[in-house]
Amino acid sequence: MTMPPLHDDARSTALPLLMESGWQPVPGRDAIRKIWRFKGFSEAWGFMSRAALAAERLNHHPEWFNAFNIVDVTLTTHDCGGLSDLDVKLANRMDKLAGSAVVEHDHASRTACLCETRPGQG
Amino acid sequence: MTMPPLHDDARSTALPLLMESGWQPVPGRDAIRKIWRFKGFSEAWGFMSRAALAAERLNHHPEWFNAFNIVDVTLTTHDCGGLSDLDVKLANRMDKLAGSAVVEHDHASRTACLCETRPGQG
Amino acid sequence: MTMPPLHDDARSTALPLLMESGWQPVPGRDAIRKIWRFKGFSEAWGFMSRAALAAERLNHHPEWFNAFNIVDVTLTTHDCGGLSDLDVKLANRMDKLAGSAVVEHDHASRTACLCETRPGQG
Amino acid sequence: MTMPPLHDDARSTALPLLMESGWQPVPGRDAIRKIWRFKGFSEAWGFMSRAALAAERLNHHPEWFNAFNIVDVTLTTHDCGGLSDLDVKLANRMDKLAGSAVVEHDHASRTACLCETRPGQG
Repeated sequence: MTMPPLHDDARSTALPLLMESGWQPVPGRDAIRKIWRFKGFSEAWGFMSRAALAAERLNHHPEWFNAFNIVDVTLTTHDCGGLSDLDVKLANRMDKLAGSAVVEHDHASRTACLCETRPGQG
Repeated sequence: MTMPPLHDDARSTALPLLMESGWQPVPGRDAIRKIWRFKGFSEAWGFMSRAALAAERLNHHPEWFNAFNIVDVTLTTHDCGGLSDLDVKLANRMDKLAGSAVVEHDHASRTACLCETRPGQG
Repeated sequence: MTMPPLHDDARSTALPLLMESGWQPVPGRDAIRKIWRFKGFSEAWGFMSRAALAAERLNHHPEWFNAFNIVDVTLTTHDCGGLSDLDVKLANRMDKLAGSAVVEHDHASRTACLCETRPGQG
Repeated sequence: MTMPPLHDDARSTALPLLMESGWQPVPGRDAIRKIWRFKGFSEAWGFMSRAALAAERLNHHPEWFNAFNIVDVTLTTHDCGGLSDLDVKLANRMDKLAGSAVVEHDHASRTACLCETRPGQG
């Protein structure tokens, strides 16, 4: 099954809402990205464990990076070479699962380093 | 390494606090048990995934049962044939991880059935 | 959506194969049960983590118990008050995921104790 | 607690063995990296779930990236600004947990794309 790309109406309604919640476009790709900072590895892993269930339910999986308390997620749909409705669904689900984790807005810095820059992180 | 059993002072301080939070003695065993009702499987599994990390950190593992949104935990220390300090630590950690999940106080009913008795559970 | 119960043809073909692989009927319920003994908690948890994904994909969840290296699974379909095609699917998937774990055939003993009876288990 | 950096003897014994098994130095950092290709998301996630337990046991966590069947791990110790004995321990543990997954030797390509380049991957 090939997913159709996100049609223009969905782009103009769904994507602005996702941008408001902290998702950002990825330069050079039709993809969206969001970075969360959790309280520690346990909370980050609890989020990832629930997001993995959601991904499996949708049969649509994220590209994601974790370093201790950071989870850095990129969503796109390989089938259609860009964003599809599945990305919107998974993004919304992840937003609910992330709860009150801090959203990191600087996507230019190396995220691997984000977990090093705060004192008191276990 | 064999864990020493919980000494009398710890029993009289730690156990009453755990009983207040919903842990109950297990008839016929020196063990404690608590049953949580989560919003669905995803929330229950997120709890279990974080509790598994905590158990591995302590090198002390629960006996636990899950049916959809129910997680039914029994703690004891096989090494010392009863409760030890590790059980108190793991119980306290699980209490934190369970957040606002509902605590089930009726331990006599079959817990496998608890998830069937509420309407609107997915 | 209500699942239909397993029809007679499926019962006479699917269930005997599951019984051969170590699933057993549950006395007094239209359900099947299988107990695996893994090498330790890590291997048991790896199995459960993959089985949780499979359950979520099917939107059909097991009743399961874990104590260290033991995973004791009961499958039935609450919707239809007994076995359905989903139980056969999840049982087959779990059999693949369990790999070479030892299957415990004595379902009468308390499974909580199984992990205590073998030397050298971490 | 600050971990001491890996001393010279350990570097000359442990690191060559890790390089043989597919770990590679990371340009510009005192870190090692390995990329595994699993059969699908479920197998990759089973590996990550067990590796998360191992990381928590060591209280030492990887930087890791996952895209469907790919797990791309970088190990270093922030405390000491480079490799420590904990990285060697976690690398060895991950090698055991990865079982027969394919090791990807080309670390220059974007790993996010690795999962797209093989036919028949679910």
